[in-house]
Amino acid sequence: MATETTPMNLLTADVLLNNWQGHRRLTRKTIEAFPEDKLFQFSVGGMRPFAEMAWEFIRMAVPIVEGVSTGKWKEFEAEKPSSKNELLRLWDKQTTELNEKFPKIPTHRFNEVDKAFGKWEAPGLVTIQYAIDNEIHHRGQGYVYLRALGIEPPPFWERG
Amino acid sequence: MATETTPMNLLTADVLLNNWQGHRRLTRKTIEAFPEDKLFQFSVGGMRPFAEMAWEFIRMAVPIVEGVSTGKWKEFEAEKPSSKNELLRLWDKQTTELNEKFPKIPTHRFNEVDKAFGKWEAPGLVTIQYAIDNEIHHRGQGYVYLRALGIEPPPFWERG
Repeated sequence: MATETTPMNLLTADVLLNNWQGHRRLTRKTIEAFPEDKLFQFSVGGMRPFAEMAWEFIRMAVPIVEGVSTGKWKEFEAEKPSSKNELLRLWDKQTTELNEKFPKIPTHRFNEVDKAFGKWEAPGLVTIQYAIDNEIHHRGQGYVYLRALGIEPPPFWERG
Repeated sequence: MATETTPMNLLTADVLLNNWQGHRRLTRKTIEAFPEDKLFQFSVGGMRPFAEMAWEFIRMAVPIVEGVSTGKWKEFEAEKPSSKNELLRLWDKQTTELNEKFPKIPTHRFNEVDKAFGKWEAPGLVTIQYAIDNEIHHRGQGYVYLRALGIEPPPFWERG
């Protein structure tokens, strides 16, 4: 039971990025599955429409990677998308940016505690995992919206 | 940029287990937030009630940890809970079992590819992360059910 006394390391930055991008591909398919008007207007139980959730993911992703990387926490600056195409265009731009910026995070920053956006104190890895978990959580809510609209969501296990 | 050429390790088994148990505490609060009848009967868009989703989490958690640990994949054996108390009792039993069994996973098994339950081929870490992600995904759906019932879900960021 070596793991009980000497914990071993399991994850590389590369595997973490691939896992995130797999989730992001699934989220992109979820955005695509919505009819344009429902994406921006439909919700259940007084919650936000799925476009608002996707906009939240966008405002978190690259700014968090930049913050973990550099220690500089800047709010995302872009006009809020008002069409599915604009939203997907921003999404794809971030896909490229994440692939460029994530591998440049200095290794020590994953374990270093920092105050994300001056508010949330956690090690870099925890802040990044929070962004991924938040996306999974709200995308699951988007699945309910799709089902309520009679639309089959993309299979959860497909990340290609 | 050392990470680009020599990927570093980020995660210990201990951190992964703590992250999972934090999510499981939040899922437990989500189960508790449902009125008993709604837990077993209410849903949106023709989906499963939240008790069915929680039962899925239970059937995955300990069997996956045992499978990754030993290479033996056994279906979960227990009577399906028919009350909130029974469900929470099973939940708490698994919390203890996970704390006992997770630290005994041999380190090499996290990276070794195996066929979970004879069906899903992946490294142990990926199979465990899938169980966690699946729980986050469906718990997010439970949040929509709660909102549709006019009930405030537990805060997503609270894992204590």
